[in-house]
Amino acid sequence: MFAPSEAELYPQTQTYKVHPSSALGDILEGEFRPGFFVGVCTVVMKLFGCVQPRIAVFGQKDYQQLMVIRHMVRQFALPIEIVGYPTLRAADGLALSSRNGYLSASERTEAVQLSQSLNTLVQALRDGVTDVAAIEQQTVAVLSARGWQVDYLTVRQRGDLLPPSTDAVAALARDAGLVVLGAARLGTTRLIDNVEV
Amino acid sequence: MFAPSEAELYPQTQTYKVHPSSALGDILEGEFRPGFFVGVCTVVMKLFGCVQPRIAVFGQKDYQQLMVIRHMVRQFALPIEIVGYPTLRAADGLALSSRNGYLSASERTEAVQLSQSLNTLVQALRDGVTDVAAIEQQTVAVLSARGWQVDYLTVRQRGDLLPPSTDAVAALARDAGLVVLGAARLGTTRLIDNVEV
Repeated sequence: MFAPSEAELYPQTQTYKVHPSSALGDILEGEFRPGFFVGVCTVVMKLFGCVQPRIAVFGQKDYQQLMVIRHMVRQFALPIEIVGYPTLRAADGLALSSRNGYLSASERTEAVQLSQSLNTLVQALRDGVTDVAAIEQQTVAVLSARGWQVDYLTVRQRGDLLPPSTDAVAALARDAGLVVLGAARLGTTRLIDNVEV
Repeated sequence: MFAPSEAELYPQTQTYKVHPSSALGDILEGEFRPGFFVGVCTVVMKLFGCVQPRIAVFGQKDYQQLMVIRHMVRQFALPIEIVGYPTLRAADGLALSSRNGYLSASERTEAVQLSQSLNTLVQALRDGVTDVAAIEQQTVAVLSARGWQVDYLTVRQRGDLLPPSTDAVAALARDAGLVVLGAARLGTTRLIDNVEV
């Protein structure tokens, strides 16, 4: 296994950076974590330089990261196939994450509400609701009332993570390629999750 | 030969960019052509993605570009050997460049003064002159008096293109690794050149 230490990967300070498109890199996670995807692109490009992989697997839980990397590979014509690995979940539906270890016992019980909120949005879309803004706001209100600090709970197009057109929402039953993404803090722990519609 | 058209290389607008270190990318050519080395790094990274070369050759006439690319390869751990190709010169010493074709006959005769100015600086250093700023200013004054618009004529360390320490200049006779770089406009044509000391 190649799992370099920070000193191995950065014998010199990393002063060269890969910047993603702002359209993809500055929204959602990029809005709440400025510069985050510059860091992601830079280290992933460097790991690709070290390993020269034919295939690279990234978890779908970090959905936007997966999209940012897919686009990076295309933009730089890298001969690498990017594979998304489905999110693993606990029995109650909570997406597995190292951050779950920071949750108190009561927070751990509450944490499932994030994926449930996403599922509520998915179900509303499948039921034919087309006023996306309204159902997003309702879902945020529910989580906020339970004590969460919500960064976003939103319906997006899968490929570019832009808000879907009304047509796309209406065509949902015929697979318009949407994804519902959420990020919210429970106490001091920030959790993210997503569900493809 | 792989010589892609713009449409082949950019089937989509290039929105992902590679940014070099500002220490190397924002001086000299980067100062007079803001963003230039972002463009260089981005297209070279993409060409490397397309070709996956083991060895890549770049002309030494674009000395700073060669250094920027050398550092890029190191910073991203790319398994590519960067080779600098010595500058080819006309009989009178003018560095060969497609831009020479823009010179009028009288400008073409005058153009050799750029490389002669660089050689004057090199000779001064070899003669033991240590007041670098003074000889740089003198050389700029000579070219300016002949009608050139000088962007820079400067003595730098080869590796990082920073101004040399006084010790480095004094140790020159024992090969301190200096380079003299110049960029100046003759009429509307901007010429660059350099000579390693």
